[in-house]
This record gives sequence, structure tokens and C-alpha cells, in this order.
Amino acid sequence: MEDWGEWEAVMVHQDEFTLATHRHGEMHDITGNVAEIVANSGITTGMANMFHVGSTGSVGVIEFEPGLQRDLPELFDRLIPPSRDYGHEQAWHDGNSHSHLQATLQSPSFTAPVAAGRLILGTWQQLFFLENDVKPRTRRIVVTVYGD
Amino acid sequence: MEDWGEWEAVMVHQDEFTLATHRHGEMHDITGNVAEIVANSGITTGMANMFHVGSTGSVGVIEFEPGLQRDLPELFDRLIPPSRDYGHEQAWHDGNSHSHLQATLQSPSFTAPVAAGRLILGTWQQLFFLENDVKPRTRRIVVTVYGD
Amino acid sequence: MEDWGEWEAVMVHQDEFTLATHRHGEMHDITGNVAEIVANSGITTGMANMFHVGSTGSVGVIEFEPGLQRDLPELFDRLIPPSRDYGHEQAWHDGNSHSHLQATLQSPSFTAPVAAGRLILGTWQQLFFLENDVKPRTRRIVVTVYGD
Repeated sequence: MEDWGEWEAVMVHQDEFTLATHRHGEMHDITGNVAEIVANSGITTGMANMFHVGSTGSVGVIEFEPGLQRDLPELFDRLIPPSRDYGHEQAWHDGNSHSHLQATLQSPSFTAPVAAGRLILGTWQQLFFLENDVKPRTRRIVVTVYGD
Repeated sequence: MEDWGEWEAVMVHQDEFTLATHRHGEMHDITGNVAEIVANSGITTGMANMFHVGSTGSVGVIEFEPGLQRDLPELFDRLIPPSRDYGHEQAWHDGNSHSHLQATLQSPSFTAPVAAGRLILGTWQQLFFLENDVKPRTRRIVVTVYGD
Repeated sequence: MEDWGEWEAVMVHQDEFTLATHRHGEMHDITGNVAEIVANSGITTGMANMFHVGSTGSVGVIEFEPGLQRDLPELFDRLIPPSRDYGHEQAWHDGNSHSHLQATLQSPSFTAPVAAGRLILGTWQQLFFLENDVKPRTRRIVVTVYGD
């Protein structure tokens, strides 16, 4: 067992952070939040998953610049517009059926690789949270890092 | 090695379940199926991935209530309608080109975090399987849980 | 410790490959590339994640036949067409706003399970890379395999 210390044990590290959002279509660059949890994990090689706990917000990657921060929410509102005709609206009357559908299509879960103790991302590739709901929310993102 | 028992070893646990589906657009709440495999794994902190083996069904998360169970399949059929004009249809004539495209866009793979031995999900956030194909199918979902 | 050798340790194995693409909408079957890295990992049971480093390319699964290789890029160009009206275009003038949006919606990250040392995939379910950008690119895909 003398070389135990050189065996790189696979570990799991889980932490979370919250975001305060103000309006439908608001985007947050969460790369720094996730990168900090990856750094704290001590994990060198592996994966990091980010998961939004809730049914009307989503995550993913994009070049996080003002143009696309406008384009992506507009795209979702064009493909999946607000409407009174959704089944969800007719039952619940909370005006956010499109929020649910947008979040399901984009996904609240995203996984990125970790190498040399850092997220592997392209230069123009940032992690984002997109507020799909129609009112201000406090959002919870759980980050799970695993690797050795 | 006296404290070996207190060292939480990272493990992998893999199991699967099947679903019988009856029609295009049918949704199944698979939260219970996945939660049972997570519970059986003995894993406290980590991730659970669910993967549909097949090219015309998809998984994800949604508030699993009757309105959205109608809205989500209708959304997919509006964005990606059945048609004889697809290249796949002209070659294969099986009437399910839109099924393939819907399943690819939504994805047959989804990953959710595990904490305190349970899936982390919002109150209105359930795991679903969506039948995108046009005929009854027996569907196989592989669940892989990893963590300590 | 005599039975140490029979304890299957959880491992992480990471490798990558590159693709040369020629045009917008070009699809590559990357199942073989990923399968080779899975085989080299020595991992029997677990997961394999593939991640495209860059903001205008995407990955996923599809029945990789000529019809759908035409249909999927056409679908993305119908839902998210090229246009001068995107905010990204007005700022950057590189004609690929739709490329960014298509890649974000489809996702540059995909996770598939591994069992018996091989990817679990359906007979008509292959892993693909889709070139969403508008010019030839050299693409980098990082594959991370974890399990025991």
C-alpha cells in the first residue's frame, strides 16, 4: 500500500448556487459559478453536470454576447409562443405554459468535461441559465463534479 | 484500514426497465422507475442517467400534469409534423420520419443529480418518456447511477 | 486484501479526436470514434460523454442513413434559418447566427451508457456530429468515459 497516495481516487463533489432572475428571457452566464465549484472539488479529470431544480428554467452553452443573449430567448418565443390555447393554461391559468415547454426542449441539465482541473470549453462557449418563466424567480443550480 | 468502512467508495450501478406504449405522443412518468433504481444502488451523492435504447423515443423533465402531457407532443407535431417529403420517408416508407427527428431534438438521454440517496427534482419536475413513434412499442430504458 | 484484484475500481478515462468538416449541415457518424475510446478505457460498466469544444457544432443520436442525414440539417434550417436580423449578426457580421442557435438547441454534449465494455445503442441509433457553422472547420470532440 506504499503507493496508495499515487493512486488517483475517483471522487464526487456536489455543491449548488442560486440566481435571482427578473424577467422572462433573461440569460445569466454561469460559467464562473460552475468553474468555482470545479476548482473547489479538487478533481483533475472528469465531468461536471449542472442541473436546474425547477420546471421553467434551462441551461446550456452559447457564445455569451449581447446579440445571442437577445436571439436565443426570441427564438424560443417564436417557436413556442405564449398562448391561452395550451392545455396547461386551460387547467392552471398561470400564463407560463410556453415557459414549461421551452425549458423541457432546451433542458435543465447539461454536462461538460473537466481536464487539468478546469472545465473544457471553447473560447466562445459559455455556460448559461435561461429564465423561461414569466416572473422574477430565485433559481437553484446543483453542480455535481466527478472524476479523479 | 480500520476506517475503511467510513471511506465512501465511488460506485456504478446499472439497471433497466421496460415500458409498453400504445400510440404516438404518449407520455409516461418514469420518475418512480428511476427513483427505485437509485434507491437500490445504495448511492448517496452523485448522478443518475436515463437512456432510451432506440431512435424514435425520448426522455426529459416536465411538470407531469394532463395539460402539458397534451401540449408537449402537440408542440413536437407542430414543429416537426408528419410528412411524405422527408428523405427518410422516401427511402423507407415507414411513416415515422418525424418520429426520428423529434426524438433526436428532444434527446433519448437525460442526467439528474442524486443527493441524500434520492433524485434531486423540483416539486413540479418529473422525468418522462415520450413515445415519438407511430405504433405501439416496447421501450427499454437503461439507468446508470454513479457516485458515493 | 487478497481479493483486492476482484474489486472493480471506478475509473475515469478521457481522450479526444478531431473531424474535418466541409460545409453547413454536414453530418458525421462518430460512433466508431467514441466506441474505440470506450474500448481503450478498459471500463466495463458506466457512461461515455462526448463533448464538442466550440459553439457552432452539435452532437446527438439518430439512425444514420442518407434520408435523415438530409432531413435533420433541413429541419434546423427551417426552424432556425439564416438571417441578417439576428442580434448576433448585427454585431459580428459573420453570417452564422443560426449556427450558434442551432448548436445551442441541439447541444454539443451527449451521454450514452456503457455495458459489457461497449456503448449501449439501438441497432438504428448512431452517434453523430452535426456541422452547424457555414464554413469548413476542424472540430474537436472530447470523450470522457467513467465507470468500473
